[in-house]
Amino acid sequence: MKIIIIGATGTIGKHVVKALENGHEIIQVGSKSGDFQVDIADAASIKALFEKVGPFDAVVSTAGYGHFGPLADMTENEFRAGVDSKLMGQVNLVLIGQKYINPNGSFTLTSGTMGDDPIILGAAVSAINGAIDAFVRAAAIELKNGVRINAVGPDVVEESPGYFPFFPGHVPVSMHRVAQAYVKSVAGGQTGQNYKVL
Amino acid sequence: MKIIIIGATGTIGKHVVKALENGHEIIQVGSKSGDFQVDIADAASIKALFEKVGPFDAVVSTAGYGHFGPLADMTENEFRAGVDSKLMGQVNLVLIGQKYINPNGSFTLTSGTMGDDPIILGAAVSAINGAIDAFVRAAAIELKNGVRINAVGPDVVEESPGYFPFFPGHVPVSMHRVAQAYVKSVAGGQTGQNYKVL
Ligand SMILES: NC(=O)c1ccc[n+]([C@@H]2O[C@H](COP(=O)([O-])OP(=O)(O)OC[C@H]3O[C@@H](n4cnc5c(N)ncnc54)[C@H](OP(=O)(O)O)[C@@H]3O)[C@@H](O)[C@H]2O)c1
Ligand SMILES: NC(=O)c1ccc[n+]([C@@H]2O[C@H](COP(=O)([O-])OP(=O)(O)OC[C@H]3O[C@@H](n4cnc5c(N)ncnc54)[C@H](OP(=O)(O)O)[C@@H]3O)[C@@H](O)[C@H]2O)c1
Repeated sequence: MKIIIIGATGTIGKHVVKALENGHEIIQVGSKSGDFQVDIADAASIKALFEKVGPFDAVVSTAGYGHFGPLADMTENEFRAGVDSKLMGQVNLVLIGQKYINPNGSFTLTSGTMGDDPIILGAAVSAINGAIDAFVRAAAIELKNGVRINAVGPDVVEESPGYFPFFPGHVPVSMHRVAQAYVKSVAGGQTGQNYKVL
Repeated sequence: MKIIIIGATGTIGKHVVKALENGHEIIQVGSKSGDFQVDIADAASIKALFEKVGPFDAVVSTAGYGHFGPLADMTENEFRAGVDSKLMGQVNLVLIGQKYINPNGSFTLTSGTMGDDPIILGAAVSAINGAIDAFVRAAAIELKNGVRINAVGPDVVEESPGYFPFFPGHVPVSMHRVAQAYVKSVAGGQTGQNYKVL
């Protein structure tokens, strides 16, 4: 399979690359790093990426920004930064990518566990994760030509110690288990699933 | 209690007004109708509404647009119309309203059942409903002074027959049950809940 991994150089993405590179052609994409560059917050940039890369079998997204901060003084613009990046960025990968993806291909987006299991400072990211999880369930029943879609939702990962203080009582998840959830989505047969990694 | 109902003149809102008007002061709000006008898609308009209405105990929102249409040709702008109205509109009611609401007050937003139980043509609305449900769970753990927040998520309602063809196998829910879910949120003690009306 030819697999485009957006966010390939990130904490999560680089483990997804390692888990999938054996036997597949991997196209690594970042905003500054990788074989190709895209800004997922910009639909024109996404279209240009798919035009350049040519036909492909899978898109994995491990990219997307969301704002963390107290609800009490959260501004609309802070909330919208994540809507534009992590939510609309990943939705646009699907709205645009469905026109380029090969039959029986797959989209794998990244949400998280905060939609179901919120933390303090996380209201914007929780909303975005909830939106991605629900979008995946809904898009799965409309994608044509056997194209599938799932979301992987990791709890805080072991290689992001900077986040640990904000996740009291959360047991950081291993990069191996996180990467395998993406493998399950890309190489398995399911669609419309939210694979939570807990 | 002084209760602001945004969308008070709508299919759902008018039943919520009837269910709550006995014993409470109701402020009816619409974009064109009602005692006061607001455009929930415009944060400045929301702020102006709260300034005009003065201190209150509850906000109920039964307003918010979302786009229905095939995923195969859905555009970013169609998807964003609902993000700006039903999602950011209701989020802004909370981000701004938390500065005006009385202690022990409540916010009640409207989502739906499509986040969990999608229909064809509904991918944008599903995502928005999922976002609202998750936002409510997360905001509940940060609101101060005993302020609560819940979402009511009705299945297609009996007074919207125009929608029935798009909801095969859904049993339309009675306006009485829908209105009572809002009463439970406003007059009950729970927070962070998604009251599904099925
Ligand atoms: N880390 C965790 O504990 C954790 C847990 C649950 C969920 N998540 C979610 O997983 C996703 C990735 O997290 P991470 O910790 O791996 O992030 P990260 O280490 O910051 O990596 C982000 C990756 O995305 C790329 N990127 C950044 N902005 C981009 C843009 N606008 N367009 C395209 N690519 C962009 C980066 O490449 P460049 O450097 O070239 O821009 C990099 O490859 C996020 O959505 C996060 O919310 C993370
Ligand atoms: N009907 C259903 O079967 C059903 C089921 C589940 C969920 N829902 C959700 O429930 C909500 C209400 O649905 P409905 O069927 O009751 O809608 P509706 O009959 O169209 O009523 C909408 C109400 O919102 C007001 N409104 C419209 N745009 C507004 C804006 N920009 N700012 C402030 N107020 C605005 C309208 O007043 P004006 O006329 O003055 O603008 C009206 O009072 C929607 O979010 C819908 O997705 C509906």
